[in-house]
Amino acid sequence: MQLEAKEKNISSSNGPGEVKTRRYTFAEPPNQVKLGSGKVLGPIAIAYETYGNLNKKKDNAILILHALSGDSHAAGWHKGDDKPGWWHSMIGPGKAFDTDRHYIICSNVLGGCMGTTGPSSKDPHTGKPYALDFPIITIGDMVDVQKLLIDSLGIKKLLSVAGGSMGGMQVLQWAASYPEKILSAIPIATGLKHSPQQIAFNEVGRQAIMADPGWNNGDYYGAGQPERGLALARMIGHITYMSDESMEAKFSRRLKNGNYNFSFNPDFEVEGYLHYKGDGFVKRFDANSYLYITKAIDYFDLSGDEDLIPSGKRIDAKFLVISFKSDWLYPPYQSREIVKLLKKRQIDTTYCEIDSSYGHDAFLIEIEEQEHLVKHFLRKVYESGSEA
Amino acid sequence: MQLEAKEKNISSSNGPGEVKTRRYTFAEPPNQVKLGSGKVLGPIAIAYETYGNLNKKKDNAILILHALSGDSHAAGWHKGDDKPGWWHSMIGPGKAFDTDRHYIICSNVLGGCMGTTGPSSKDPHTGKPYALDFPIITIGDMVDVQKLLIDSLGIKKLLSVAGGSMGGMQVLQWAASYPEKILSAIPIATGLKHSPQQIAFNEVGRQAIMADPGWNNGDYYGAGQPERGLALARMIGHITYMSDESMEAKFSRRLKNGNYNFSFNPDFEVEGYLHYKGDGFVKRFDANSYLYITKAIDYFDLSGDEDLIPSGKRIDAKFLVISFKSDWLYPPYQSREIVKLLKKRQIDTTYCEIDSSYGHDAFLIEIEEQEHLVKHFLRKVYESGSEA
Repeated sequence: MQLEAKEKNISSSNGPGEVKTRRYTFAEPPNQVKLGSGKVLGPIAIAYETYGNLNKKKDNAILILHALSGDSHAAGWHKGDDKPGWWHSMIGPGKAFDTDRHYIICSNVLGGCMGTTGPSSKDPHTGKPYALDFPIITIGDMVDVQKLLIDSLGIKKLLSVAGGSMGGMQVLQWAASYPEKILSAIPIATGLKHSPQQIAFNEVGRQAIMADPGWNNGDYYGAGQPERGLALARMIGHITYMSDESMEAKFSRRLKNGNYNFSFNPDFEVEGYLHYKGDGFVKRFDANSYLYITKAIDYFDLSGDEDLIPSGKRIDAKFLVISFKSDWLYPPYQSREIVKLLKKRQIDTTYCEIDSSYGHDAFLIEIEEQEHLVKHFLRKVYESGSEA
Repeated sequence: MQLEAKEKNISSSNGPGEVKTRRYTFAEPPNQVKLGSGKVLGPIAIAYETYGNLNKKKDNAILILHALSGDSHAAGWHKGDDKPGWWHSMIGPGKAFDTDRHYIICSNVLGGCMGTTGPSSKDPHTGKPYALDFPIITIGDMVDVQKLLIDSLGIKKLLSVAGGSMGGMQVLQWAASYPEKILSAIPIATGLKHSPQQIAFNEVGRQAIMADPGWNNGDYYGAGQPERGLALARMIGHITYMSDESMEAKFSRRLKNGNYNFSFNPDFEVEGYLHYKGDGFVKRFDANSYLYITKAIDYFDLSGDEDLIPSGKRIDAKFLVISFKSDWLYPPYQSREIVKLLKKRQIDTTYCEIDSSYGHDAFLIEIEEQEHLVKHFLRKVYESGSEA
């Protein structure tokens, strides 16, 4: 599907690597996309940022894919920000994703709440936010929308697609949906399918939101977020992003006030930290987006024999698969399952399990080893791609 | 502290091992206990069951200690029950805790909601349920109350104290508080202290309850439970009781209705199961008890050098420490920390890590190996106890 893109909004930002924030809306016909559910959605706006410059051959573009609560602001600083983009330490001049050599693109996912169409966007048919009229989406739908963006930028083939967690699922989905469009793929801290334990954690998060009377069956726009429910969902999530070991190192049993409260107020630093994280999340993330995106994650399953690489279909992309030892939410064995499937299809695959104590969050923290792996890998990909 | 016990309620039940259910209330002065918080609570009722017979020397008594959501109904069947007591497969004639030889006692914990005084009990000062006027309690308080019961039964020394999870914490607390009163101790699937990750899971459970408007700051008696909040707390808990592996074996990605719903209704069997468990829990467990008991667990910490066995204090009890390989809530390393501490104090300790895939729930499921270990251990304890 080829859509024409209309540039709607350009804002430039301070920071390294010529950070540009853009928002596109696919407004020319066909302005709709067919979803995995069979429903049709449109028009679709896509918010994205770019870092570095697209070369004349347009063969140096890398698409970065964000996780559940991420957005298109992967690197650099926006005015007023107290911290940079979520993968700032990986993207920039001389970094893993080197903006001196590569053109880095990161777009907010479909269903998100940071510029790309999602449940908080205006439904053109009613002029009000979609809320629960927004259709259930899949990781495949997210990737189909990213494909529209890549096409609109005139990029025939991506040098790489890379991301951790849900970002890694999108990486695998790119390989499944558009193998001819990628020269390489870097799935990090992810798996071929969402396991029942992973689904269970998402479901309790959703229940926390939907049990909040403020959620009001999704119809809360204008009235304020279901704050307690959304904060609780985030608190649950955050436990799964850390490890037993990293929590012990960061908090141990230290008390907030030096003594037990002998009440139900948080006693321990770990409790205070989770509350802080939950409260902060409510200010920046839409509760319905949390529901839609977690559901898309739960539906993710490319574990079947014909899913990732259908038999008879050739895929030339090279893979770099990375996992982290202490990640119990997306444990290394799930990455090894990806590697096993790829090797069975004789795909050029590099695998590294990084010895980190940071749990699932490691993909945002363990920069040095990832930088080394990614740089080396991309050089190999670029060189073999130029030869071809 | 020696209290006189007044038998208040006797109901006998069908089932093996002469199950007797009794409820005692300590009504004679002093009818109060001093709590770890410094507050005073009383009078205190204790609900307990017994299986088997106390011998004339009163040296064959074993105290079984229950976990967070357990109660005194450890074995046998009550009329109308659709399942027996929670450790039925471990307690009975010829079983691990052999009612042909031993007298088994199991009491509901202080703060509980199954007969022993807790937040849903009537506050004698107001005639209404305590609700949040109930004081914050500790594992030490639970054990102090159990000690009153044991004294009232005329038992000078327990042949053993045994339990898993929070039951295991009470076992350790017995060793710390009353080492002269126990001949042996069997802590299962537990640790010397609650870790920040364990605290974090308890805190999100509490927040789920307290965020439910039906909780009404604890004052919901007569109006019905905060059902959604309590069910959600239980769902969160239940995830931590199983393992990634056991969830995969039991549910994998099987769908409830064979197809995706493309809605926020539960799609997967694992979701349906958690909802079923949550809804069932609401019918039998008091929300405020959940708050009080999880707080007591979070306060548990006997990891200091002088906590479990103060220096200069002799402890003759033998220990059998059991953990389960796939238990990620109370991982085997925490049991090994107990063993390390005991060995350092030259205490006769047997340790076994059982190779189970059932996660934390294994202490309720892996009967064969536990039976073998416990039987052998108790025989050794009984024989050496008789020699002494």
